[in-house]
Amino acid sequence: MSKAQLSVAFFLQMAVILAVCRCVGYLARRVGQPQVVGEMIAGVLMGPSLLGLFFPQVQAMIFPKASLDILYVGSQLGVGLYMFLVGVGFRTDLFTSRLRSAMAVSISGMVVPFILGGGLALWLLKVPGLFSDKATRFEAMLFLGAAMSITAFPMLARIIYERGLTGTSLGTLALAAGSIDDAAAWCVLAIVLASFGGGASTAVLAIAGGLGYGLFMVTVGRKLLSRLGTATEREGKLTPTMLASVLMLFCLCCWVTDAIGIHAVFGGFLLGVAMPRGLFAKELQRQLEPFAVVFLLPMFFTYSGLNTRLDLVDSPQLALIALVVLVVSCLGKGVACWAAARFSGEDNRTAMAVGALMNARGLMELIILNIGLQKGVIHAPLFSIMVVMAVVTTLMASPVFEWVYGRHARASGELGKAQLGA
Amino acid sequence: MSKAQLSVAFFLQMAVILAVCRCVGYLARRVGQPQVVGEMIAGVLMGPSLLGLFFPQVQAMIFPKASLDILYVGSQLGVGLYMFLVGVGFRTDLFTSRLRSAMAVSISGMVVPFILGGGLALWLLKVPGLFSDKATRFEAMLFLGAAMSITAFPMLARIIYERGLTGTSLGTLALAAGSIDDAAAWCVLAIVLASFGGGASTAVLAIAGGLGYGLFMVTVGRKLLSRLGTATEREGKLTPTMLASVLMLFCLCCWVTDAIGIHAVFGGFLLGVAMPRGLFAKELQRQLEPFAVVFLLPMFFTYSGLNTRLDLVDSPQLALIALVVLVVSCLGKGVACWAAARFSGEDNRTAMAVGALMNARGLMELIILNIGLQKGVIHAPLFSIMVVMAVVTTLMASPVFEWVYGRHARASGELGKAQLGA
Repeated sequence: MSKAQLSVAFFLQMAVILAVCRCVGYLARRVGQPQVVGEMIAGVLMGPSLLGLFFPQVQAMIFPKASLDILYVGSQLGVGLYMFLVGVGFRTDLFTSRLRSAMAVSISGMVVPFILGGGLALWLLKVPGLFSDKATRFEAMLFLGAAMSITAFPMLARIIYERGLTGTSLGTLALAAGSIDDAAAWCVLAIVLASFGGGASTAVLAIAGGLGYGLFMVTVGRKLLSRLGTATEREGKLTPTMLASVLMLFCLCCWVTDAIGIHAVFGGFLLGVAMPRGLFAKELQRQLEPFAVVFLLPMFFTYSGLNTRLDLVDSPQLALIALVVLVVSCLGKGVACWAAARFSGEDNRTAMAVGALMNARGLMELIILNIGLQKGVIHAPLFSIMVVMAVVTTLMASPVFEWVYGRHARASGELGKAQLGA
Repeated sequence: MSKAQLSVAFFLQMAVILAVCRCVGYLARRVGQPQVVGEMIAGVLMGPSLLGLFFPQVQAMIFPKASLDILYVGSQLGVGLYMFLVGVGFRTDLFTSRLRSAMAVSISGMVVPFILGGGLALWLLKVPGLFSDKATRFEAMLFLGAAMSITAFPMLARIIYERGLTGTSLGTLALAAGSIDDAAAWCVLAIVLASFGGGASTAVLAIAGGLGYGLFMVTVGRKLLSRLGTATEREGKLTPTMLASVLMLFCLCCWVTDAIGIHAVFGGFLLGVAMPRGLFAKELQRQLEPFAVVFLLPMFFTYSGLNTRLDLVDSPQLALIALVVLVVSCLGKGVACWAAARFSGEDNRTAMAVGALMNARGLMELIILNIGLQKGVIHAPLFSIMVVMAVVTTLMASPVFEWVYGRHARASGELGKAQLGA
């Protein structure tokens, strides 16, 4: 395709993506689900699992092969920017305020699914076509363990806001536990990526480079960046020059972390964590979030959906595996977090609510799966099975939460009305 | 290149583009030039005219051939969104307030450069390698005429704001004249594009389709879109769903105008003009402008700069042509507008100021030239000569304006201090 044809195809593609994501998102919100659930499903619907299965010509017209490079790069930019903004909104002060329960919940919400995921990997390694032949047993266990223990951290924050839990004891506990879990899971993923494919020197570069980058960011980086914060307070606004500097740094961090063999999302997220707070962070979110979330992120859901092939889950054995993966992921995360919260002294309702919230995998799971697929750790059938798990656990979160906690809390006046945002 | 390599290359490329555009933009502002002048020059510097000439390996590393598709699509998105936002900020009420002078200035600022440009084309057609062999004499004349009569409309608005002219008689006059000129020049360009390349049926589709699209937008489209305005006023904000709908429509309009054979910028601009004003327009600009202007637009300047090959202007003949083009463009636009303003009763200082402002070609010229190059109407040498003309006339605008008008007006207290934005 010529450049001009690519650009024509791009505009049509984006019009379709935005329309489908919003329509499915609207339907999702109608049944009490967050927008992001709708967009996850919309991506799958546009892929070979539905549109491509029934209308292959339409699918090939909207998503010509030559255009997928652009969709991929756009999705990387979108997810990188999104993780950067998640980092900017990351509240480290939450760790300290409810440390004991948070540590208990997060450790069990990490260790249990990790062990279960690792065990599952041992079984799945025997099924041909799920893991790459190049993946060692250890790498497969680490990857599935990390994928099982991920939490939909940004979605958690969103649900907590939508349900009116911001600042409550439950909201704080869930957010703190979720953030610790995700940080740990990403570290494990970094190790998998570092060890995978290359030899020892690649692994050393990735691990040492990743550690070095992280340390630099939270120490020297944070200090250097604090000037941006004071400059913003002084000017009373974030000037285009400052925004450009931030975006330049963002691209540089994404490039560095990509180049040393971990992934651009780490670069974006850690840069966001190191950014100064206050007016600067608010302005940054105000100026970048609309385009990143409304335009770029749907590109990621779509790209992910185009790789999801539910038609490959076509044998009783694979269907059984999908069911087992789903049950194990709910046991490992939801039930384990409930138990940990109970043991650290929370009442049963709060503990069940924590379990329901922590169990959602959301967008984070899709990110980790896409990295695994792109780096060649897992193949399309396992990718598709895991996507189903991510969608179902995310779908479950809101109604289960409402059932075990929300309706009681609302009835007793403890919680305000749910503010399901547009 | 694999998808993963493309994404790594993209992040490095964007980091370089943002850094260079900001540095050159900073230097430009230091000498009293607007940021956009710096970015135009930055694009040329990163291209084969400087970086590629002295450090070809570095250039090839930062801009690998496979990444140019992505840069192109990003630049189209950027320039389309920018024109959309220009359309959103377009004030039709300016037409009426100073109609007589504005009509005189705009007609002479259009007819004179158009005739001179057409005449120049007759001469340049005799020089091999400037125009495409496929371009008829008539098409070449139309294209060069349109390219000569373009005004840097968004830049005009920016300079008028920066120099404190907003709402003054001079500012209103220049804006009104500039907007009429640009609208006319784009119509001519649409005719060139419509007639070029395809047969009669292509031209008919483009002209009829373009007219139909334009008419639909300013009548039915405007009416339908007004609901978005009332919904925004009712909600007190622009929700993500509304933003998504707007972006979806934007992509659709870009696709339609691209597909019927004119160009995506028309689709974006006319959609912007048809959008409701008030809170809705303000919110739209607030949410889209930062990313579009700071991140996407530099992609356009860079792509344009990568196609600018000053090394091709290597013979005395071509250098002479470049000089003649520059002089003719200043005579045709700056001097003609001055004369027209004088004849319609403006005092000499105001008339000179109008000429100085109208003479700048800015980003608009780059857009029209890139379309011409991409559609194959002109070749790289003429493209490069015209880029030089665009940069020089844009560079001239601020100092000439300051010299003929600003310093006197400031001395007499008529004008406030210049607010050279960051």
